Amino acid sequence: MDKTIQHYPELRTAFLTYLAENPYQQEPRGLYEPVDYILQLGGKRVRPVLSLLAGQLFGAPINNILPVALAVEVFHNFTLLHDDIMDDSPLRRGQMTVHEKWDINTGILSGDLMLIKAYESLGKTVTPHRLPEMMATFNQVATGVCEGQQYDVEFEDRNDVTIAAYLKMIELKTAVLLGGALKLGALAADASREDADHLYEFGRLTGIAFQLQDDLLDTFGQADEIGKLVGNDIIRNKKTYLLLKAQELASPDQTATLQFWLGQQPVDPTEKVKKVTALMEDLKIPSLVAKLRDDYQGKAYAHLDRVATSAEAKQPIRELTEALLQRIT
Amino acid sequence: MDKTIQHYPELRTAFLTYLAENPYQQEPRGLYEPVDYILQLGGKRVRPVLSLLAGQLFGAPINNILPVALAVEVFHNFTLLHDDIMDDSPLRRGQMTVHEKWDINTGILSGDLMLIKAYESLGKTVTPHRLPEMMATFNQVATGVCEGQQYDVEFEDRNDVTIAAYLKMIELKTAVLLGGALKLGALAADASREDADHLYEFGRLTGIAFQLQDDLLDTFGQADEIGKLVGNDIIRNKKTYLLLKAQELASPDQTATLQFWLGQQPVDPTEKVKKVTALMEDLKIPSLVAKLRDDYQGKAYAHLDRVATSAEAKQPIRELTEALLQRIT
Repeated sequence: MDKTIQHYPELRTAFLTYLAENPYQQEPRGLYEPVDYILQLGGKRVRPVLSLLAGQLFGAPINNILPVALAVEVFHNFTLLHDDIMDDSPLRRGQMTVHEKWDINTGILSGDLMLIKAYESLGKTVTPHRLPEMMATFNQVATGVCEGQQYDVEFEDRNDVTIAAYLKMIELKTAVLLGGALKLGALAADASREDADHLYEFGRLTGIAFQLQDDLLDTFGQADEIGKLVGNDIIRNKKTYLLLKAQELASPDQTATLQFWLGQQPVDPTEKVKKVTALMEDLKIPSLVAKLRDDYQGKAYAHLDRVATSAEAKQPIRELTEALLQRIT
Repeated sequence: MDKTIQHYPELRTAFLTYLAENPYQQEPRGLYEPVDYILQLGGKRVRPVLSLLAGQLFGAPINNILPVALAVEVFHNFTLLHDDIMDDSPLRRGQMTVHEKWDINTGILSGDLMLIKAYESLGKTVTPHRLPEMMATFNQVATGVCEGQQYDVEFEDRNDVTIAAYLKMIELKTAVLLGGALKLGALAADASREDADHLYEFGRLTGIAFQLQDDLLDTFGQADEIGKLVGNDIIRNKKTYLLLKAQELASPDQTATLQFWLGQQPVDPTEKVKKVTALMEDLKIPSLVAKLRDDYQGKAYAHLDRVATSAEAKQPIRELTEALLQRIT
C-alpha cells in the first residue's frame, strides 16, 4: 500500500497539471483572461491538495477528486480577487492584482465568474449522488468566508472585540475553507458522512491553529521565516489574539503603555514594535499563544484519529499539517 | 382542472409571501441587511413566477418550486447589485442602490453572498436526483449572464459591433435567465429533460423578443408606457438593433446624417432624438424590429407547443408573455 500513497509534492504537481490542462480560454477574453491570470500566480495550493489527500484516504483515484480540488482553489482565488479590490491592494504574490492590471469593474465581474466556475467544477464530481451534501458543505463554507471577511472589516473600527469574537472571525475567514476542502474531497471519494465530518473538524481546528501560528510569527518570527516585515500587525494595531490577550492581562501601568503605543503611528515604527513586543513578552503572550495553538491542533488530531482509515494512510495529511505549522512547505 | 391553475397575480403573491417568510436575518447585519434591502425593492418578479408557472405545468405543488424561484430571483438581484456598482448607478427602482446607501465594498461582498445564497436555495429542491441537471443549467445561465454583461460593456467602445453580435449579447445578458427560470422550475417538478429543454428555448427566444420590444419602445414608445425618457438609447448612442440596422440600410446621405448626430451630445437632446427617430422611420426600422420580434416570439411559441402538457395548462404562460410584450403587467 505504501508506494501508492502520494504526498504533498506529487499531489501539488498533479493539481498543477490539471489546472494547466483546463485553462479558462473562452470568449470574451476580457472576462476570462483575469481568471487564468490569478489562477497562475502561484501559491502553495494547500487547499486543493487537502481535497486530494482526503480523497486518497478513501482509495479514490486522484482524477476523481481533481474537479473538487479545482472548485476549492477557484473559490479561494475568487475571495483573494475580491478582497484585493476591497483592500485596494496593489500586489498579490509579488504581481499586480487583477483590479490594478485591468480595472475594478473587470475585477468584480471576473471574480463573480470565478465563483460560478467553482460551483461548475464541483458539479463535475463523479459522485453525483453526493452532490446535495457537497453543495450544502460548499454553501456553508462560502457563506462563512463572506461573514468572516465582513467581521474582519468591522473589527477594524471597533474597540469592543472579544477574544471569542476574534477566534470566530478567523474560523470563518480562513479555517472553514480548510475543513471544507477536506470534507469535499472525502465526499467526492464517497466517504461516509461521519468520516467526512471528522475531516471537516480536523481542517477547521487546524485552520485556527495555523492562524494563531501566523499571528505569533508576525510578531515573534524571523523576517526570513515569514517573508514579510516582522511586527506588521503591531504597526497596524491589528486586533489579533496577541493584542487582545495582552489587553486582557495587562496591569494598569501596562495598559497605559499599550494605549500610548496604540495611539502612535510613527514614520519609523521600530520603537513601537520593540516596546509592544517587549510588553507582550513580559505578559508571556508567546507561550500562551503557543499553548492555545497546540490545544486546537491536539483537538484537530483527535478528529483525524477517528477517521476510519489506517494511520499509515493519514500520514501525508499529518506531514503537511506539521510542515505548514513550521512554515517549511 | 381549470380552477387549480394559478396565474401571474396569484403566483406573484405566493412568491412574495415566501420571500417575506424567509428573510436574510443572520449576523453580521452589515453583510445581510443589503441583501434584504435589494430583495425588497420590488419589481415585477417575472423570473420567479416563470419558475412557478413551469413547475405548475407538470402538476407540482407550488411549495416545491418556491426554493428554485427564490434562487432565480436572488441571482437576478445579485446581477443588479453588481451591475449598479459597475455602472455607478445611484438609483434602482427609485431607491438608493446598495453601494450608494452603504459603500462599494459592502456592495461587492453582499453581492457575492447573494450568489452563494442563490445556489443554496437551488440546493433545497425537493428533487435532489435532478440537482446535477439543475446545477448545470444554473451554471450555464449564470456564466452566460456574466459574458453578456462583459460584451455589453465592451460594445460601448467598439465600432464594429455586428447585428449578430448584438443579438448574442442580449441573448446572454437577459434572455438565457428567462429560459433558465422556466427550465429550473420544470426540473424541480421532475419534468422530462425534453420538456424542460423546450421550456428553456421558449424562454430564451421570448427573452430576445422582449429585448427587441424594449429597444423599440425606447425610441418609438410613449413616455407613460415605458416609464422613462423616450429616446434614451439615441441620446446615449446605444448600439441597439435599431441603430445597427439603420447603419446597415442607410444611403450615403443618411449615413452622413447619422454620423453627424452620433457625434453630437447637445445639452438639449430634443433635436437629436427627433432627427435620428425620423431617419429610422424613413428606413422602416420600426416594422423591421417588430417583424424580427414576432419571428422570435413565433419560434418561442413553437417550443411551448411541443411541451407535452395540455394547451389549457400553458395558458397562464402565454398570458404573461403577451402582457409583458404589451407592457401591461
